[in-house]
Amino acid sequence: MTTLAPASPSTDALGTAAARTRGAALEERILENPGRFRVLTGDRPTGRLHLGHYFGTLHNRVRLQDLGVELFVIIADYQVLTDRDVADRLTEHVEELVLDHLAVGVDPERSTVFTHSAVPALNQLLLPFLSLVSVAELNRNPTVKDEIAHSRQSAVSGLMFTYPVHQAADILFCKADLVPVGQDQLPHLEITRTVARRFNDRYGSGGSVFPEPEALLSEAPLLLGTDGTKMSKSRGNALTLAADADETARLIKGAKTDSERHIAYDPAGRPEVSSLLLLAGLCQGRTPEEVAADIGSAGSAALKRTVTESVNEYLAPIRSRRAEYARDRSYLRRILREGNERARAVADATLAEVRAAMNSHY
Amino acid sequence: MTTLAPASPSTDALGTAAARTRGAALEERILENPGRFRVLTGDRPTGRLHLGHYFGTLHNRVRLQDLGVELFVIIADYQVLTDRDVADRLTEHVEELVLDHLAVGVDPERSTVFTHSAVPALNQLLLPFLSLVSVAELNRNPTVKDEIAHSRQSAVSGLMFTYPVHQAADILFCKADLVPVGQDQLPHLEITRTVARRFNDRYGSGGSVFPEPEALLSEAPLLLGTDGTKMSKSRGNALTLAADADETARLIKGAKTDSERHIAYDPAGRPEVSSLLLLAGLCQGRTPEEVAADIGSAGSAALKRTVTESVNEYLAPIRSRRAEYARDRSYLRRILREGNERARAVADATLAEVRAAMNSHY
Repeated sequence: MTTLAPASPSTDALGTAAARTRGAALEERILENPGRFRVLTGDRPTGRLHLGHYFGTLHNRVRLQDLGVELFVIIADYQVLTDRDVADRLTEHVEELVLDHLAVGVDPERSTVFTHSAVPALNQLLLPFLSLVSVAELNRNPTVKDEIAHSRQSAVSGLMFTYPVHQAADILFCKADLVPVGQDQLPHLEITRTVARRFNDRYGSGGSVFPEPEALLSEAPLLLGTDGTKMSKSRGNALTLAADADETARLIKGAKTDSERHIAYDPAGRPEVSSLLLLAGLCQGRTPEEVAADIGSAGSAALKRTVTESVNEYLAPIRSRRAEYARDRSYLRRILREGNERARAVADATLAEVRAAMNSHY
Repeated sequence: MTTLAPASPSTDALGTAAARTRGAALEERILENPGRFRVLTGDRPTGRLHLGHYFGTLHNRVRLQDLGVELFVIIADYQVLTDRDVADRLTEHVEELVLDHLAVGVDPERSTVFTHSAVPALNQLLLPFLSLVSVAELNRNPTVKDEIAHSRQSAVSGLMFTYPVHQAADILFCKADLVPVGQDQLPHLEITRTVARRFNDRYGSGGSVFPEPEALLSEAPLLLGTDGTKMSKSRGNALTLAADADETARLIKGAKTDSERHIAYDPAGRPEVSSLLLLAGLCQGRTPEEVAADIGSAGSAALKRTVTESVNEYLAPIRSRRAEYARDRSYLRRILREGNERARAVADATLAEVRAAMNSHY
């Protein structure tokens, strides 16, 4: 008989602070010995990635890869099924994601980019994992509650309800020990850690089949879209990696600012101007205050010219690589096929281990 | 955006009656052209099968197979995970199930016996299927409600909650069009039919990927255990196929009856005596009334002698085959491996079709 102990309650503010402190210590351990870490990260294939994604996560993925950490990038195609508009253009969206990753420097020789639906042994893990989590725990998950509140669906699907357990399978199939997450994802990762712990307790025979992955808490810079709200694919306010220099110039020119001539970094009081300063600073490798000092009282038009130049200069090599890869769809397909094969080999090995641990290797 | 329409409300008494009528018509269609039907059926590996199973389902499985229907028997090893006592002896229980099936005449050349955990592509179907069913529908399922009420668990696991969707995957992976079910399983099958219909509507491009499987409603004879309650593995009151003649004699001798000398078939008034008459009748191919007339006023002891003889005579060839197969565990393993390979090939083909339909064949 199974007794499902409650998940550790580290999902509150205290837990977040603790995770941030752990993050700094973790970063040191990564720098000491990057080769012993495996990272699982990924995206839903809902369209082209933008600068919010880039400075929020993509940049860090490439940094970790280049340090020598082993990187797995999952394209979570089963998580967009309930959005019909997206599902109808799935192949296109998946290819765009692969393109964006190649463009920013993810190296398919060292890193594995793969699609959820192509790895049956990963998906099978969902079944034993579901036996380790109670319905009450799934009901309590705040991220799922949020998703449900914000979803455009008339009814909550079984897929959305069990989503944290899929995520446990996504992370544990490759025994990732590091997962870059935003603060809102911490409760999900806690369920993954709970699943790993319970599986080990129950089937590990004293050893451990799965690591308890650690959160690599990333503080994504808050970049606003051109309308002054959070940059987001679905809001049509995003500066995408794929846009060309002219489109970028046009979008930034139309971005919302304010009428004050003097440009200063004041995120609380002047969010739109501050977001543009932050963006230029990220591209130039300087602080937003430094960028503001350069512009002084030259006004929004001058700020926008600076931002446009900085972004276009920064993205130029990324865009040029992207355009090159985009010309050869068969190459993209091959990258994805090879990534899927690698993920399948890893998942098959893990599932064999899981079946042996569970006495179901007949 | 997905709208999940409510499942057809054919789970009430009216629905059951309708299913029974459909059953008779279905039986005719099977006899006309058995080769066009595929049946999915199966068991949880919780121990040896008994006469209740035999006359309830096993006998019918062999009958269908011998008519020329293609038979898939799933050993649902992922459905016993939450019972630790059972899970610890999983391999043994699985082998016993294979043995029981071979003994009663399931022919591994024609029929496929396989384990749930050995078919990743089958299990992957759970994910798209979960997107087609709402949490509200899962909450409403009366069989799951029942399972939950009767379960020995302190908390309902995600695995139990999503069980009807696993069952949809079990049935649809091989595109079974017939599922032998007891009345209590009708709501589950209704969810399978709903999943098939919704998948076809959404992804079928006008055609249909999955059949909507029909219930082959079996009216299992109500055989009581030796203590007068329903025959059940877990109650220790069962006459198993594997028991030898002496053990069977001993168990029947100790069975609960009543003190009336005159033996008559009266299921409502004298359930224990009637169950024994029914059992002897099933073994002799006669009605329980005919068996009762033979015994007349010779009392319970005579009844028990008749039942013992009938059961032991009927089971003799089954037990002799069982003993023969039991001597060669490596043969059992091979049968299971071959069944698993066949199931995997079928599941891989179905999953490829599903991925093509869903545009996720990259």
